[in-house]
Amino acid sequence: MSGSTFGELFCVTNFGESHGPAIGCVIDGCPPGMALSEADIQPELDRRRPGTSRHVTQRNEPDQVQILSGVYEGKTTGTPICLLIPNTDQRSKDYGNILDTFRPGHADYTYWRKYGLRDPRGGGRSSARLTAPMVGAGAIARKWLFEKYGTQFRACMTQLGELKVPFEGWEHTSRNPFFAANASSIAEMEAYMDALRKSGDSVGARIHLEATAVPVGLGAPLFDKLDSDIAYAMMGINAVKGVEIGAGFACVAQRGSEHGDELTPQGFRSNHSGGVLGGISTGQDLSVDIAIKPTSSIRTPRASINRELEPTTVETFGRHDPCVGIRATPIAEAMLALVLMDHALRHRAQCGDVSLPVPAIAAHS
Amino acid sequence: MSGSTFGELFCVTNFGESHGPAIGCVIDGCPPGMALSEADIQPELDRRRPGTSRHVTQRNEPDQVQILSGVYEGKTTGTPICLLIPNTDQRSKDYGNILDTFRPGHADYTYWRKYGLRDPRGGGRSSARLTAPMVGAGAIARKWLFEKYGTQFRACMTQLGELKVPFEGWEHTSRNPFFAANASSIAEMEAYMDALRKSGDSVGARIHLEATAVPVGLGAPLFDKLDSDIAYAMMGINAVKGVEIGAGFACVAQRGSEHGDELTPQGFRSNHSGGVLGGISTGQDLSVDIAIKPTSSIRTPRASINRELEPTTVETFGRHDPCVGIRATPIAEAMLALVLMDHALRHRAQCGDVSLPVPAIAAHS
Amino acid sequence: MSGSTFGELFCVTNFGESHGPAIGCVIDGCPPGMALSEADIQPELDRRRPGTSRHVTQRNEPDQVQILSGVYEGKTTGTPICLLIPNTDQRSKDYGNILDTFRPGHADYTYWRKYGLRDPRGGGRSSARLTAPMVGAGAIARKWLFEKYGTQFRACMTQLGELKVPFEGWEHTSRNPFFAANASSIAEMEAYMDALRKSGDSVGARIHLEATAVPVGLGAPLFDKLDSDIAYAMMGINAVKGVEIGAGFACVAQRGSEHGDELTPQGFRSNHSGGVLGGISTGQDLSVDIAIKPTSSIRTPRASINRELEPTTVETFGRHDPCVGIRATPIAEAMLALVLMDHALRHRAQCGDVSLPVPAIAAHS
Amino acid sequence: MSGSTFGELFCVTNFGESHGPAIGCVIDGCPPGMALSEADIQPELDRRRPGTSRHVTQRNEPDQVQILSGVYEGKTTGTPICLLIPNTDQRSKDYGNILDTFRPGHADYTYWRKYGLRDPRGGGRSSARLTAPMVGAGAIARKWLFEKYGTQFRACMTQLGELKVPFEGWEHTSRNPFFAANASSIAEMEAYMDALRKSGDSVGARIHLEATAVPVGLGAPLFDKLDSDIAYAMMGINAVKGVEIGAGFACVAQRGSEHGDELTPQGFRSNHSGGVLGGISTGQDLSVDIAIKPTSSIRTPRASINRELEPTTVETFGRHDPCVGIRATPIAEAMLALVLMDHALRHRAQCGDVSLPVPAIAAHS
Repeated sequence: MSGSTFGELFCVTNFGESHGPAIGCVIDGCPPGMALSEADIQPELDRRRPGTSRHVTQRNEPDQVQILSGVYEGKTTGTPICLLIPNTDQRSKDYGNILDTFRPGHADYTYWRKYGLRDPRGGGRSSARLTAPMVGAGAIARKWLFEKYGTQFRACMTQLGELKVPFEGWEHTSRNPFFAANASSIAEMEAYMDALRKSGDSVGARIHLEATAVPVGLGAPLFDKLDSDIAYAMMGINAVKGVEIGAGFACVAQRGSEHGDELTPQGFRSNHSGGVLGGISTGQDLSVDIAIKPTSSIRTPRASINRELEPTTVETFGRHDPCVGIRATPIAEAMLALVLMDHALRHRAQCGDVSLPVPAIAAHS
Repeated sequence: MSGSTFGELFCVTNFGESHGPAIGCVIDGCPPGMALSEADIQPELDRRRPGTSRHVTQRNEPDQVQILSGVYEGKTTGTPICLLIPNTDQRSKDYGNILDTFRPGHADYTYWRKYGLRDPRGGGRSSARLTAPMVGAGAIARKWLFEKYGTQFRACMTQLGELKVPFEGWEHTSRNPFFAANASSIAEMEAYMDALRKSGDSVGARIHLEATAVPVGLGAPLFDKLDSDIAYAMMGINAVKGVEIGAGFACVAQRGSEHGDELTPQGFRSNHSGGVLGGISTGQDLSVDIAIKPTSSIRTPRASINRELEPTTVETFGRHDPCVGIRATPIAEAMLALVLMDHALRHRAQCGDVSLPVPAIAAHS
Repeated sequence: MSGSTFGELFCVTNFGESHGPAIGCVIDGCPPGMALSEADIQPELDRRRPGTSRHVTQRNEPDQVQILSGVYEGKTTGTPICLLIPNTDQRSKDYGNILDTFRPGHADYTYWRKYGLRDPRGGGRSSARLTAPMVGAGAIARKWLFEKYGTQFRACMTQLGELKVPFEGWEHTSRNPFFAANASSIAEMEAYMDALRKSGDSVGARIHLEATAVPVGLGAPLFDKLDSDIAYAMMGINAVKGVEIGAGFACVAQRGSEHGDELTPQGFRSNHSGGVLGGISTGQDLSVDIAIKPTSSIRTPRASINRELEPTTVETFGRHDPCVGIRATPIAEAMLALVLMDHALRHRAQCGDVSLPVPAIAAHS
Repeated sequence: MSGSTFGELFCVTNFGESHGPAIGCVIDGCPPGMALSEADIQPELDRRRPGTSRHVTQRNEPDQVQILSGVYEGKTTGTPICLLIPNTDQRSKDYGNILDTFRPGHADYTYWRKYGLRDPRGGGRSSARLTAPMVGAGAIARKWLFEKYGTQFRACMTQLGELKVPFEGWEHTSRNPFFAANASSIAEMEAYMDALRKSGDSVGARIHLEATAVPVGLGAPLFDKLDSDIAYAMMGINAVKGVEIGAGFACVAQRGSEHGDELTPQGFRSNHSGGVLGGISTGQDLSVDIAIKPTSSIRTPRASINRELEPTTVETFGRHDPCVGIRATPIAEAMLALVLMDHALRHRAQCGDVSLPVPAIAAHS
């Protein structure tokens, strides 16, 4: 019920604000006996970390994670795992000029209207910084799912503003600052971002996301559908405005004879479903696409109002990502892993442990 | 936690199968003292009902709702409201030929893999028929939200297969069998559907959805974001493969200076946000788009397997919607109403009742 | 979250009122593939049924259960099971005299204060009649637990008013109208109840409850302790005012050297813990005691107020149990079964299926 | 669902182990705008703190609480409040002799059976130390309830081992190390405890608990009854084996004409109900009693087994409370406050804010 808890059985409760002393999360329900240390988590946080290229915010946070509980002698005990990430580079003064006004497209206004007050330091609770603990929690889910089923997660940017990024191979995603599965367009993307940054504006992005070696049978018929929970998780990532599973919006113009993936003893002949039918995983790869809006904190002057509802103009200085979509890639992977982890445990509860890992028919997608 | 319960505070628990004795739901958490009778609910069910035009399934169900509990002397008592809808037109033999095989694109296969058995009569639990109780529950939410805040819900089909349906006015949606906000394209749509039906195939559709007079401040910062819950609800509707809030996927190519809706004392200057910022409602109209895949039950022969994993061919006879997107319109409205109802109650819990209905600045979208 | 739903993974949502058209429940999360028919459920309902002896209410309800969903060809499908029990003997006029007043010790007053209105027919939602669907749901849990682990449930009355009922053997409980594990005191109990009934008053009772062949390891360290959930379930039964686990209140005067159950390779030497340590089952028998208050609907005139808060006198006529504790016995068994069922599924989720049924050391209690 | 989260709308997620780096909790759902600082919380923690007299464990922890999030400029923001309490006095070697064996009456055995491993340092997660964050969370709930409704909480020891402690006045509870509402028996209690400590054994205790100025109408009819949730909360406190509401087990021997509290325009004539009827608060004082078992960590040698299931003898050295019941008093108050806080928010959600604080009739108990 808590608006800061994600998951039903693998429950992650997130806390903290962008410029408070620390952020973190409590992970409850982790199966006991899994080897775990900070070294399993830190690499994922490093992928999401700010300050890694000139195309992301220059805030310089090491995002060093500490395990405060739930691990004894290098193994999970089955009790809650608390991850703590101290905030080390808060420059509250950067945000001084937005204390009394509201940035167009930002949560400034709605927080103030909901709660009657807000923590303006770095966006407070609305900061994308709060995704860091989720990336940490996701690393634990990924480890368990990989060890148990071989499940893996990968994502790449497929569009940057109006620039489409052709898919050239998963191996490229770790070799450029954009998580692009591409080598040939990187120079163009760099130039695009440099020009954008100079202009003081921001752009959106599109991310494609996959999970492989997904157990068949995860999900539920009516409301806790696997794809519903994926949509919930994705739309919950800061700045996401659209989610597609499999064919997504392209399915509108498809015929049933085209969209429905034919089955053969060797596997499905296509994957328009994106790996989910009737809310339950088919054993094929999960395939998800998300749209990320342009950052709302931009230098371009914009019309707004202040807390007295008087007209004013807002310009945002400070350190901001000109395209939040770039760092969203590891975040989306983590959130997808958390959804699968939760459903894997739910499936065990109702149907037991047997037969999950091996699909009846070969999955090809 | 239950996969058949929707909502946290306005909880709707759904039960039944397409061809069992009855379907229905239990609604828990309804505020007491609201006037309510079957007459408040039946009209919404009638909008969703099958058999109303030649373009939808010819199954002929009156879908007559009974209130079994929770109402005394015409008022809600605050205790659970059970809605029962008897099934009256089950023709199980229509489905005989799919007992042992799996329809491409259908939940047949995943149910069987998850549970080891399935109720094949009319799709059992995976039938879109199970949305009827949600439409009933949605009618109660709509009534309460309208009486309290003036909130209203409306939706229209904006694309049928490859046919775009121009918006001409909300008044048209009740005057054609497609819920199209359009008068000039109806003849073309009728011809399109007639040809499709003859071909034995099916198509997808795109639906646009709005809520007006939405209280400002509904939602939560991190996980129970209003837009996350909308995405969850929409993706949970049968056959939905994509969800957009506001600008949706179009935001990818937008600049921040274009996407961020400027504020003035008279209201927002645009509504790219779709009425949600940082997971919390702005007081503008909610704006949502969904993609609905083509029906998987088609007459066209398709390759598949049987339960022994041997290759076979499947053709589906019986009564099916050639475009499930048509009847999805009232369903989507109902699900959006349920999301808002739940968040209205959650907001009252944390922030109290004051100041919800009137936005600080005039909403224009 | 719903106040009418019990359980997290084996979720029972209850609906109905004493004198509405029907009562029932929706059970979500039941493992698929278990043989189930009304014949598995009806015998438990018959044990709880009114009108079976002169010592309980003379309301004559057959309490005939119907399975509306979730079972196909005699097996659970994994989807929600709806149980419906029509109300057939409503005599609303019996309650006419309490429409405007509040019975001392009854929920009349609090319902009216909470909701601003109430359904007075037979106590509406506060009637013990609403336990019937729980007994039905409990029957399903009992079947699954017995088939999987051999777990069984039994309960007996150990005190009737000031009359202590010595334990003489479990075999007696089905042979007398009091669920007493006793043969020698029955005549005295009959005479006691006859005199009480004539006096127009009511009495309390004490029930002892056990579960045998309980898997070791059910429960959770901090809040979802097995004993917490048992206390929650027991205190939720109508009229219960006290709950004890194992030694219960007697532990106050015990020394640690006496209370702590010593372990040997052959099992525990005693069972002061009642089968739970640190919130987790030990594998010993669960042992629970509950106190049930005297019925509040009595013929004896009592001071009260009416809805205008004016003083008045209340006498209750109609058909009431002079000792609700009598019929509470099968209810308590059912609720304990529901708690164990839920924890068995939760345990599977986190720890998997292995090794649950066999305790490491022989259980003796 | 998480076994480490307490509450539905005022959600407290607890983390940590007795001898890890820190313990704490995340409180989600706190209403915004309430003044809050560590100074509001620390006094309650100081009441529960170890080392305050020779009758409790000599572990010397300052239990200094830090607010990590959710408060900005001295006010709650409506976002999660993280409380951190560093562990400063871990002496792991004290527990060395129980690494491989199981203390009779302790969670040692069940944790090991459930999870296959355990953190033995100071009892790990099963330590009563984990109640400290709940006392912190409870302090926040108490502040809000007092400011809004004037609700207050108080508790006292009414029995220490076989020693009954007569009630002489609430003012005494803060003047003796036992939280006894008594002045005349303190010397006897001191002597009793000194003898007990020397003997190396432990005893149980009985605690009486009250809440005053309780809003009428809190709770729900069927499962989220106020008294069910109180029973759940109380039974969840370490070492509690019994819970009574109002008359408790004494109700068994009462007649209905005695037990049912008569109503008058000036208030109830008695409070056998303990302030709850039909699961909903009457507006009278809440009255609760709990039984706390003797500590299981004692010096007296006891028969047990080791992890190889071989017979052995266990003696526990180190610093332990000879009567855990002493420090349970502030813990029980905090847990009761958390239950009421949660129900106050739930009530607002369904029924709105109006009319809660003032009972219709004067409450006297």
